[in-house]
Amino acid sequence: MSVTPSAQYSLTIRVEIAHKPGMLGRVASAIGDAGGVIGAVDLVEVADETLVRDITVDAAGPDHWDAITAAIEGLDGAHVVDTTDRTFLMHVGGKIEQANKAPLKTRDDLSMAYTPGVARVCQAIADDRDKAFQYTIKRNTVAVVSDGTAVLGMGDIGPEAAMPVMEGKACLFKEFAGVDAFPICLDTKDTDEIVRTVKLLAPTFGGVNLEDISAPRCFEIEDRLKAELDIPVFHDDQHGTAIVTLAALLNACKITGRDLMDLRVLVTGLGAAGVAVTKILMEAGVRHVIGADSRGVVSTERADYQDGSMNSMKRWYAEHSNPEKITGTPADAIDGCDLFIGLSGARIFPAETLAKMNRDAMVFAMANPNPEVSPEEAAPYARIIATGRSDYPNQINNVLAFPGIFRGALDVRAQQITEEMKMAAARAIAQIIPDSELREDYIVPSVFNREVAPAVAEAVAQEARRTGAARVDDHAIGFAAGDVDRLLS
Amino acid sequence: MSVTPSAQYSLTIRVEIAHKPGMLGRVASAIGDAGGVIGAVDLVEVADETLVRDITVDAAGPDHWDAITAAIEGLDGAHVVDTTDRTFLMHVGGKIEQANKAPLKTRDDLSMAYTPGVARVCQAIADDRDKAFQYTIKRNTVAVVSDGTAVLGMGDIGPEAAMPVMEGKACLFKEFAGVDAFPICLDTKDTDEIVRTVKLLAPTFGGVNLEDISAPRCFEIEDRLKAELDIPVFHDDQHGTAIVTLAALLNACKITGRDLMDLRVLVTGLGAAGVAVTKILMEAGVRHVIGADSRGVVSTERADYQDGSMNSMKRWYAEHSNPEKITGTPADAIDGCDLFIGLSGARIFPAETLAKMNRDAMVFAMANPNPEVSPEEAAPYARIIATGRSDYPNQINNVLAFPGIFRGALDVRAQQITEEMKMAAARAIAQIIPDSELREDYIVPSVFNREVAPAVAEAVAQEARRTGAARVDDHAIGFAAGDVDRLLS
Repeated sequence: MSVTPSAQYSLTIRVEIAHKPGMLGRVASAIGDAGGVIGAVDLVEVADETLVRDITVDAAGPDHWDAITAAIEGLDGAHVVDTTDRTFLMHVGGKIEQANKAPLKTRDDLSMAYTPGVARVCQAIADDRDKAFQYTIKRNTVAVVSDGTAVLGMGDIGPEAAMPVMEGKACLFKEFAGVDAFPICLDTKDTDEIVRTVKLLAPTFGGVNLEDISAPRCFEIEDRLKAELDIPVFHDDQHGTAIVTLAALLNACKITGRDLMDLRVLVTGLGAAGVAVTKILMEAGVRHVIGADSRGVVSTERADYQDGSMNSMKRWYAEHSNPEKITGTPADAIDGCDLFIGLSGARIFPAETLAKMNRDAMVFAMANPNPEVSPEEAAPYARIIATGRSDYPNQINNVLAFPGIFRGALDVRAQQITEEMKMAAARAIAQIIPDSELREDYIVPSVFNREVAPAVAEAVAQEARRTGAARVDDHAIGFAAGDVDRLLS
Repeated sequence: MSVTPSAQYSLTIRVEIAHKPGMLGRVASAIGDAGGVIGAVDLVEVADETLVRDITVDAAGPDHWDAITAAIEGLDGAHVVDTTDRTFLMHVGGKIEQANKAPLKTRDDLSMAYTPGVARVCQAIADDRDKAFQYTIKRNTVAVVSDGTAVLGMGDIGPEAAMPVMEGKACLFKEFAGVDAFPICLDTKDTDEIVRTVKLLAPTFGGVNLEDISAPRCFEIEDRLKAELDIPVFHDDQHGTAIVTLAALLNACKITGRDLMDLRVLVTGLGAAGVAVTKILMEAGVRHVIGADSRGVVSTERADYQDGSMNSMKRWYAEHSNPEKITGTPADAIDGCDLFIGLSGARIFPAETLAKMNRDAMVFAMANPNPEVSPEEAAPYARIIATGRSDYPNQINNVLAFPGIFRGALDVRAQQITEEMKMAAARAIAQIIPDSELREDYIVPSVFNREVAPAVAEAVAQEARRTGAARVDDHAIGFAAGDVDRLLS
């Protein structure tokens, strides 16, 4: 439960209030005294003796709701009619729907959008499969694919239960980049079957965003799909996090005057995100990384490396990091580090451990909802602090990356999202903040900064064109009459 | 190519016309003389000497376009700037898109629709999988699944080329019944793989509409999916056609005063539609059916039955039809029939063959675009004529059935679409036309009759409740504040 009232626990409380002066004020005070934060107040019904109002109240959690409604009931002349959990209400029937782009009101509409006219369009695609990008939703549609095995902090909750997250992702794609996305939650955890299924679905889509698939399966699934499909495949938990982390680091280094090549970095949590963050940092020039998972610091000296029981991704990690073969806990490895990246979980060490870092320490404590160290506790020891949370400065949030990345990739019909394109996206995100505005508590743009996605899209498209990943130079979404003939010619 | 100008071949012609009196009339006359039918005329640009106009013209086919533009070019003071094929233009970027049902403009929006609030909704579904129908798009979303092997008259054109038809189907679902549909074109023709893939996709969807999958694979795919899934599976090419054909027949029998039990019926074309039409007629009481495929009338006497090379569906057909073991061509079998149902192809016999039918003959010649016999030629021999075409009376079109059927099934969360539900749908379609309005050329309601889908939905839902196929009594799409709490309790 979060400590401060927030919208995630907001409630609409329908209250019948005696129709006399001062009553609404007393109700509002009772809610406030109980710790609720009032948003909208709407009038629902007026009778002679009473008014019925809907009062929207942010609360600290479900347990808090009872306290708030009890406070209202405790008043003379007020009665709670019922309550609605606004988060659940927003989800009723799902968060996305289908919309038709053209009306279907007349026989003429029908004869163009469906039979018999549609047959000519089908035939044109049958003659040239590439025209699917021109005349079907493939042009602008991404599959958001999950098996529900690593959903937020909840782990393996299954495909049905993962749907609200995938729908939410689709909402973000549309809202921030105009990308149509469709959530596909698969009823299997088998790597081969997931790979095969996504391949069979590919004709419909212009890209695939993998999501919340547990490590290490996610690495193999992504690698195989990238090798076998001719549309971009992107595992957001890995690369979205990696790109935004790098963006934050680029700006943090500007402030602290550091060079990536000289950084000493500790990463805790070696799941999908931890591995991908490490890789992108290395590609960007970082040379000294130490990683730790729940069993401690990873190295080629560790027992599970030596006995061969370590998975292939961690073997790679052991071989490419920790040159000094440090062993032990994260607290043992943090000595002399410049950057701590937490992708593990709350409270892996006491905040004072950060005192062992170099001066001007950078702490990216990204576990959600509870960071590895709270920003308040880290403050004495770190110059720059970032988290995954929206209620602290410097939120490292994937939504800064994935909408613009797919927008750019779709715009040039990229066959893949290359490492160069990811680096370009990170630089574009970092550069949204002008040097003159950079501050310790402003190294990452706001998720609601509408400049981010277009800038990322442009950078990604440009890099795709430069490196040959693009299939077309550019494509315009709108067409004037006449364009279609020219496109067809 | 169709003979009369139609919207499927409509063109927007951008014409630069000398700015002097009477010129637009001369251009319009030239188009008309060339056989084009003018729709809208828009003004695009005005200069001192010239006007640029967009003229929308229905043509008889692509070859006709040249004649029309040549006629314009032949005028002094008119020049064709360019032309746009309106059917292709309508398809640019696909025909459907994703829409977000709630705005995502603020941190509060984000914290309810996505992290952290979404986690509570996920957890609720993880605790009770049935809540997926409440809080995800499963409630209202149908997969339109094809492998692209039997698309319209074009046959096996592949998954990419099938997309425009599947998107069109999705448009019809939304337009006529508010059902969200998503097109899935699979890159495989393997029966096992199609069955397995649809099963893996099922968590996302509330129903599956199979489409344009070639016979006999379509029968097995549907049967297996129906047995293994707990959401409705419906192969529209079979059952949609069957339901609307039965609806038409119920009304035709009212007019001709016949009883289904006494009818003698000849069906040509024993693909998905032919078999399903035969089955629903038998369920409705028809006892005497003769079927013919491209090799002639089917019976247990036929060589391919006897040598075992006939597929299982046709073996079933041979065993359940043609009690007199008639052999030969459809023309040999039509003697003394009351009803001819054509689901094969144009011109299988001369129209005069229909003279051998009983008086008050009913001819449903449904091949598209060219019926087995043209209504004009059939007229002397048949009292009631129906086709699959929109430009003749009595169009037997699946769109009368599938939107309402899925609407009804989703509304009661039916686990399947039973034979009883299909019969109920057929009766509901037939009953849209009051007895007082029934006429030889009005036995089927218009595809644009907005009463049809709600009536079908209601009949299907009611039958599902009556027979126990429904999981909930009813469900409302809209919710007032407070409903969610009640639903949760």
